[in-house]
Amino acid sequence: MPNYPPLPSSRTYAILGTGALGGFYGARLQQAGMEVHFLLRSDYEPVRQQGLRVESPQGNFVLPHVHAYRDVREMPSCDVVVVALKTTQNHLLPQLLPPVVKPNGVVLVLQNGLGIESEVAAIVGSERVMGGLCFLCSNKIGSGQIRHLDYGQITLGDYAANDAPSGITERMQQIASDFQQAGIAMELSEDLLLARWKKLVWNIPFNGLSVVLNATTQEMMASEPIRALATQLMQEVLTGAAACLQRLSPEQPNRIIPFDFIATMLDYTQTMKPYRTSMKIDFDERRPLEIAAIFGQPLRSAQQAGVELPHIQMLYRQLQFLDARNRSHGSPQ
Amino acid sequence: MPNYPPLPSSRTYAILGTGALGGFYGARLQQAGMEVHFLLRSDYEPVRQQGLRVESPQGNFVLPHVHAYRDVREMPSCDVVVVALKTTQNHLLPQLLPPVVKPNGVVLVLQNGLGIESEVAAIVGSERVMGGLCFLCSNKIGSGQIRHLDYGQITLGDYAANDAPSGITERMQQIASDFQQAGIAMELSEDLLLARWKKLVWNIPFNGLSVVLNATTQEMMASEPIRALATQLMQEVLTGAAACLQRLSPEQPNRIIPFDFIATMLDYTQTMKPYRTSMKIDFDERRPLEIAAIFGQPLRSAQQAGVELPHIQMLYRQLQFLDARNRSHGSPQ
Repeated sequence: MPNYPPLPSSRTYAILGTGALGGFYGARLQQAGMEVHFLLRSDYEPVRQQGLRVESPQGNFVLPHVHAYRDVREMPSCDVVVVALKTTQNHLLPQLLPPVVKPNGVVLVLQNGLGIESEVAAIVGSERVMGGLCFLCSNKIGSGQIRHLDYGQITLGDYAANDAPSGITERMQQIASDFQQAGIAMELSEDLLLARWKKLVWNIPFNGLSVVLNATTQEMMASEPIRALATQLMQEVLTGAAACLQRLSPEQPNRIIPFDFIATMLDYTQTMKPYRTSMKIDFDERRPLEIAAIFGQPLRSAQQAGVELPHIQMLYRQLQFLDARNRSHGSPQ
Repeated sequence: MPNYPPLPSSRTYAILGTGALGGFYGARLQQAGMEVHFLLRSDYEPVRQQGLRVESPQGNFVLPHVHAYRDVREMPSCDVVVVALKTTQNHLLPQLLPPVVKPNGVVLVLQNGLGIESEVAAIVGSERVMGGLCFLCSNKIGSGQIRHLDYGQITLGDYAANDAPSGITERMQQIASDFQQAGIAMELSEDLLLARWKKLVWNIPFNGLSVVLNATTQEMMASEPIRALATQLMQEVLTGAAACLQRLSPEQPNRIIPFDFIATMLDYTQTMKPYRTSMKIDFDERRPLEIAAIFGQPLRSAQQAGVELPHIQMLYRQLQFLDARNRSHGSPQ
């Protein structure tokens, strides 16, 4: 287990990417009294002038004044740097991260997909990386305006070189305590890579098929063929996870997703509100899809571990086509 | 080889389903001097009054008077009964066929997919069935108005019980001669089932993906991931064909689609005009898709022969979802 130094007793936060996700969590942290610094691009002027506004079933609130920046070189270095960009922007991280993370600080990657922590580790060192998996349903409805629809929980996992399990570190507990103070339900994972694969069990079928089929979770779950296909895709995620985790740590046979996790995820999807997935929202808004992180990297990892995942591969190819066309020209219709 | 009696020296034709396909071939046959009887439904009145009109790159023509019927019981029994319905209408065949086919006549199935000849054989006897594969690009643009866009060739194959190869029969040559007289390029196949599987090599990837991806053949061929996926789907069709044909006739190892047929079909698709597939046209017009004949039956045959075709299965499931939603409610968007 890695032996990371704890963070200071009071933590400062930088939010890189003040959209539906970064804007929501950052605003909650500031509302709870934390010092938060927000990096923005197109929304910089309106947010600097009018602050952030959050609509939420837990109560609407406005932060009239926030620390807003459009260049990381103007930001103070912080204890916790939250990466809340889309993974399609991750080529910017080598420029964004070094100026803003303290020597003993951490970069908290709140993104989907695999392989991001090791990219970040190559920039700031593996001892300054942590990962988080967000179960959040929110939209940006205007400049500095976030609509929180449902959920919000984060599963935190510390990062160790070679994706080894890190156990529960003190700094994880410190960050969890800040988020909990801000009203966010937190779960701590001893094994970040396992947690990331578990999240893919849902994201791969439902994000992917929602775009290809132009469908909500409810429509998909109501279809017998699609439930069967989603189940197959989930089984392949388990196959990929088992191969990759066993390849990394053959001495730890318990690094595995239990088979009944598939039924749990299907039940969960069945009972959730009809939901437009985050990838479908990106597609509808003509933003680049996060398919390299959510599909490409898991497929590559599985292949390196010696397994093919044919259904996931097929879905990835369909998404590559739809994503390229969606960004290249007019209406998909 | 079956020993079927020849047809009479002058053949009469019944066309069941006077749409883009049946209307085109029937009109060409009548134009060439054949006696043709057309079964219609919603277009009966306009066609009875105004006849058929065909626009074609080979020249437009009008048949002001045609023999039009809306009930097979009013039709004379014919030597050749052309089934030109969509396969989604095949539940009607037990009512439609018996009154209209002569004792020594044949039912010529001009439909896509597998397993249709054996269904027809159960109705009229296996000695009265023949199959044809149409490479035709045409649309119905109004009542009794057909727009022929491209191609038109038919591959004919006679049917024998248990899908055995029938060789080239005399009645095949007779029918081919009538169509050739009508300006239709004809090819004779000794092995109908093999010819049907060969047609699926194109139909399964391009009909299926055109609907799922909302794409023309040109858009699909321009995408590296989709070319790779189409190639995989084609390989699975070859796998299914090999398993099914070897199961039926283990003593005939040459009943096989050669592997380079895939490259031939890809090249052909690359050089053809940008084309909206027939399944995409059906989808856009909110007609039921012919997925049971083109996907369901081949998958079932392959499974009976002991092979799984996972990519084709996945595409079939996606199409089942899209087809059901397309017919059940408003816009797919």
